[in-house]
Amino acid sequence: MLAAARTAFAERGFDGATIRGIATAAGVDPALVHHYFGSKDKLFLAAVEAPADPDEVLPAVLAAGRDELGASAVRMLLSLWDGPARPAGLALIRSAVSNEWTAKLLREFLVAKVVGRVVGTLGYSDEERDARGALVASQLIGLVMIRYVLCAEPIASASHESLIAAIGPNVQRYLTGELEPPAPARPRPHPPS
Amino acid sequence: MLAAARTAFAERGFDGATIRGIATAAGVDPALVHHYFGSKDKLFLAAVEAPADPDEVLPAVLAAGRDELGASAVRMLLSLWDGPARPAGLALIRSAVSNEWTAKLLREFLVAKVVGRVVGTLGYSDEERDARGALVASQLIGLVMIRYVLCAEPIASASHESLIAAIGPNVQRYLTGELEPPAPARPRPHPPS
Repeated sequence: MLAAARTAFAERGFDGATIRGIATAAGVDPALVHHYFGSKDKLFLAAVEAPADPDEVLPAVLAAGRDELGASAVRMLLSLWDGPARPAGLALIRSAVSNEWTAKLLREFLVAKVVGRVVGTLGYSDEERDARGALVASQLIGLVMIRYVLCAEPIASASHESLIAAIGPNVQRYLTGELEPPAPARPRPHPPS
Repeated sequence: MLAAARTAFAERGFDGATIRGIATAAGVDPALVHHYFGSKDKLFLAAVEAPADPDEVLPAVLAAGRDELGASAVRMLLSLWDGPARPAGLALIRSAVSNEWTAKLLREFLVAKVVGRVVGTLGYSDEERDARGALVASQLIGLVMIRYVLCAEPIASASHESLIAAIGPNVQRYLTGELEPPAPARPRPHPPS
């Protein structure tokens, strides 16, 4: 079931994949998938081997209020990565960098299930939500790369509070600052019909 | 020679490694290393399999002037990665993510030879230069991860100009904005003597 789920989520994205389709591909009854995983959300997290469950950590991020969301997101990232989520997070990044399919799953996880849900509370159009979300993701994954993968000083051993003070405002600008969201140079190609 | 150089640069960093030491480890005369590579700088770039030579690309970045450095750095990164440097850059990141030694080399390359030289023109103390450089590196490597590794839209297909407008100001804040540079929570551990 998890292999079929990975294929479906990587090929179609979280929104495009269905429990029915995944069950069919795995040769089982959809009720069995529901029984084991409860929801498409939980099945996705299991398929990605997600380092944390957004349902559990995002409420604390969102409790911060609009003007503190940037700092709050950096704080949560640091507490997860300096805590239980680091091994699974590193494994996910290692796999995504060398494997296109895992890259798609990590992208879905990060953009649709984590950052998109934070930006989604701010009342933008879908297009602007996606653009701001990708910008936020670029800073957060860059922080992970520098602190936990490359271990570059002084970020590698900096205190949480000093990183939140330095990086939080940049994330905040991506969330609520005045900016023209990045747009393609030309219309995106249509998917093959 | 390159294997000995990689070991030396990863163990001691760019500043700590010497051509003499590398030559000794490789069992050759230092003059031979000079003959083949010309300088420690070029030997380092060859050892890292650097995607671009900072001596060739940084002058154009620095020509922009203090208040345009952030935009200029993003512009150069995009032109390199949407041009000849991408395959070598991706290979370097893939290797660094799964191999601690390559991570050290990439860190040296990015921090000491690229970002550090840009921040080094701004007149900060060494400590502040390193802190601001690491922040800049976090945003730039994050942009690479989102656009070229995870290929998340709309950043993956955004025009250079729209990315420069969105991300340049954030890099500029790290370069010249008012901020308290990140600092360790406690004194860094001494290296083993």
